[in-house]
Amino acid sequence: MTNLQRLHSQVSFLSEIDKLKTIQRQTLLLDKSRCENDAEHSWHLAMMVMVLAEYSDRPIDPLKVMKLVLVHDIVEIDAGDTYAYDELGHQDKAAREQAAADRIFNLLPGDQAEELRALWDEFEERKTAESQFANTVDRVQPLLHNCLTGGLQWQKHGVTRDQVVQRCAPIGEGSEALWEFMLEKIDEAVARGQLKP
Amino acid sequence: MTNLQRLHSQVSFLSEIDKLKTIQRQTLLLDKSRCENDAEHSWHLAMMVMVLAEYSDRPIDPLKVMKLVLVHDIVEIDAGDTYAYDELGHQDKAAREQAAADRIFNLLPGDQAEELRALWDEFEERKTAESQFANTVDRVQPLLHNCLTGGLQWQKHGVTRDQVVQRCAPIGEGSEALWEFMLEKIDEAVARGQLKP
Repeated sequence: MTNLQRLHSQVSFLSEIDKLKTIQRQTLLLDKSRCENDAEHSWHLAMMVMVLAEYSDRPIDPLKVMKLVLVHDIVEIDAGDTYAYDELGHQDKAAREQAAADRIFNLLPGDQAEELRALWDEFEERKTAESQFANTVDRVQPLLHNCLTGGLQWQKHGVTRDQVVQRCAPIGEGSEALWEFMLEKIDEAVARGQLKP
Repeated sequence: MTNLQRLHSQVSFLSEIDKLKTIQRQTLLLDKSRCENDAEHSWHLAMMVMVLAEYSDRPIDPLKVMKLVLVHDIVEIDAGDTYAYDELGHQDKAAREQAAADRIFNLLPGDQAEELRALWDEFEERKTAESQFANTVDRVQPLLHNCLTGGLQWQKHGVTRDQVVQRCAPIGEGSEALWEFMLEKIDEAVARGQLKP
């Protein structure tokens, strides 16, 4: 591969991932005007990493966590966003996302395809301290948005407190302090009648 | 400030910056369906840093560059996006953005308010290697989008080749290779009649 071919591959990948801006999630913007998309969400998570890293229970490499959150949703360009409480959608989610990872990351030159694929695998596995904290902010953000928008999306989908607690428990794998804080927010939402007990 | 007050300040800042998702830019998505917003744009730049860092002419700290691009547009929540070729808007851009920085970054606890303000200042000053490369990708991305969408936005605003070259020349401060590559793209656009000579 010549230098120019390498740059062309990189530009081709960077153009392809523009599509992440069109993948809608189920999380409302705080002004409730619309749901956010995956690209905006990924930026918001990176900002959360920058501001909340001190709450990680274990030492983390901030650059690694940043990369994990920036890359973690790219497979949804092909696989779509699977709503957190969609049990049917979760049955074939892994297969759809593996195929997407194979196609999209391989637009890059080999060394970078490997690097980004490894980042995505690491995020999904939730084993390293970095990946656990990346998953922490990935669950804090929509939870916070639900709490700050009166639980509208929970009500729309008939979600209960138990489902939210089960879905969001991985927050505690990365940060006990943030999990404690968010558990209080969940109970406040129940008390206000915005989330089913 | 107690620990809980600190966390409340951080959450208050992280909620405020959700508004960046509503600040429209003049850059079309590659599918031409709409213009992108500042949050999506910032995510795209962070991905460019990850993939294109090897083209920086000087050694750079990738975490620093990443932070610079993630933070650089937050002031536009108050100041709005000033189009690259809007001369009138550029007259009071600095004053509007300084006031915005004073308000928004100060939602954070003092130490973090200082850190993010310093990042924004560094990006604007274009003196360090990190800031020059951050500015490189900030100008490569919309230029690439203009080239890949047939120059529609250039035509809409009556922009000429000279204006584009002048506006995008800072690409060369961070990376000669990327500037050379983009200059070819500009000339291809002129040859195709998509940009006024």
